[in-house]
Amino acid sequence: MTETPTPAASPRVVIHTVRVEFGDCDPARIVWFPNFFRWIDAASRHFFLQCGVPPWHETEKTRGLIGTPLVDTHARFVKTASYGDTLEIHTSIAEWRDKSFVQRYRVMRQSGEGGTAAADLIMECDEVRIFAARREGTDTGIRAIPIPADIKALCS
Amino acid sequence: MTETPTPAASPRVVIHTVRVEFGDCDPARIVWFPNFFRWIDAASRHFFLQCGVPPWHETEKTRGLIGTPLVDTHARFVKTASYGDTLEIHTSIAEWRDKSFVQRYRVMRQSGEGGTAAADLIMECDEVRIFAARREGTDTGIRAIPIPADIKALCS
Amino acid sequence: MTETPTPAASPRVVIHTVRVEFGDCDPARIVWFPNFFRWIDAASRHFFLQCGVPPWHETEKTRGLIGTPLVDTHARFVKTASYGDTLEIHTSIAEWRDKSFVQRYRVMRQSGEGGTAAADLIMECDEVRIFAARREGTDTGIRAIPIPADIKALCS
Amino acid sequence: MTETPTPAASPRVVIHTVRVEFGDCDPARIVWFPNFFRWIDAASRHFFLQCGVPPWHETEKTRGLIGTPLVDTHARFVKTASYGDTLEIHTSIAEWRDKSFVQRYRVMRQSGEGGTAAADLIMECDEVRIFAARREGTDTGIRAIPIPADIKALCS
Repeated sequence: MTETPTPAASPRVVIHTVRVEFGDCDPARIVWFPNFFRWIDAASRHFFLQCGVPPWHETEKTRGLIGTPLVDTHARFVKTASYGDTLEIHTSIAEWRDKSFVQRYRVMRQSGEGGTAAADLIMECDEVRIFAARREGTDTGIRAIPIPADIKALCS
Repeated sequence: MTETPTPAASPRVVIHTVRVEFGDCDPARIVWFPNFFRWIDAASRHFFLQCGVPPWHETEKTRGLIGTPLVDTHARFVKTASYGDTLEIHTSIAEWRDKSFVQRYRVMRQSGEGGTAAADLIMECDEVRIFAARREGTDTGIRAIPIPADIKALCS
Repeated sequence: MTETPTPAASPRVVIHTVRVEFGDCDPARIVWFPNFFRWIDAASRHFFLQCGVPPWHETEKTRGLIGTPLVDTHARFVKTASYGDTLEIHTSIAEWRDKSFVQRYRVMRQSGEGGTAAADLIMECDEVRIFAARREGTDTGIRAIPIPADIKALCS
Repeated sequence: MTETPTPAASPRVVIHTVRVEFGDCDPARIVWFPNFFRWIDAASRHFFLQCGVPPWHETEKTRGLIGTPLVDTHARFVKTASYGDTLEIHTSIAEWRDKSFVQRYRVMRQSGEGGTAAADLIMECDEVRIFAARREGTDTGIRAIPIPADIKALCS
């Protein structure tokens, strides 16, 4: 008798939409890649807001949590995009660790009809982020805090 | 009798210096991470120029080479930086493949005395880049071309 | 007997919406002002698209028109904005000249209910822009062309 | 008998140098104009530092002065610039008012020989800025404070 393992629940996915502008493109007429990280950072924040987590300027006051700075990022660029394109960033949390988590992004080009096809993958990115508090007695020093259980529950 | 293997020659390293500005920092008062990729992209271009490779707008005319777009990037963030810091980006080519290469960056904070210490590593990044030409009949399509031998010789 | 002067027709207004992100803000926690110009430039392009003008990469092919570069800009900053705010950029063409035009922007904060009040004016800006073609025999040189009558008709 | 009016002393000028990078340019292959404001903002801060004013994160602690936010800016774009160019931003304070001041910028292209000619003016900009403190009881509200006499003396 075989047992089918209980499949892990699919992680929550939040979609953030971005219009590519003229000024986002470089002399090769394609998106200048640092802009993808700008959009991904916004997608990260919107993910938490959509999941019901208060904005960081509130959590800084209520619990000292100033945000989720990046520890490590790994991105793969698959196709180019240019101005006029609308991109969808599909964001989820792929893994929860003790003091960090992996936030995953799939950036897809929206077709003219409003849908997206797998073939239109533009880039994908896995980030390791932490939940951070200020290090006492410093201006800019930060330290990782344990994953807040309530935030993990909201985002899974 | 043992033979010491001939050590691989150290790759050529070019240093690109960046001053961190107020506007490069976010409400957490530290460098907003997409700016590191902005600086790294500039360091990549300066690396080739310092090695004697003509600017891409010239190579586009002479040999159809429009630049070195990014295929894959993996960055690790070690320490924060803030405005007032001067950063040194140490750039080299860690590996040459058939149609791509690995460009490596180590971003260090310059100490007050103008030196840098290993302890001051801010972030490091390995990028896979290609040498690109335009795909005929398209506006923004690009394709990888084989590593130009003369450029490889200049940069090793 | 008095004559009421015929009022000038109100110019066409197009609204472009922008969400302020964490990375758009500086260590003073407010929008770092160059980002307003980034958004205004996008609003300028969307204005023309909404009015029915084809994108510049099409007009470059069909009529040599590469875009509407800026000649002069005058901006007044009234209130600060920060991340979490949604801004509406109200764009119109305030004046048509022979070889240039004045594009006007009023950036307002959207209230929680989706409306905007005059009291929520964040900044306003008047730009002088031209319709540009490439200068022959140069890479980056541009020259002003006369206002295209069809585009003027679409945008008034 | 005629009196020659005492000529006003020339204001102090500080030069800030900027290399134009590939990613600073747009699909028209010229500097995307919001980047000029990015550089001008850095030139503004360097002006004060070069004049001997402490960085704003220090003045925030010692006297509540958080920086010099922009109230009004007026820029004129004269020539285009592109990557490979080195720009000099010549910064001075053109006028001191009660609670604001006019900071003036002239952005010139450095010629190959390291000099700049008046003919190489790229853009110029007059900004009205204030010295700002935080408005009590707010996160992002700011208010103008009177021009600090010591800073005025250092910068004139």
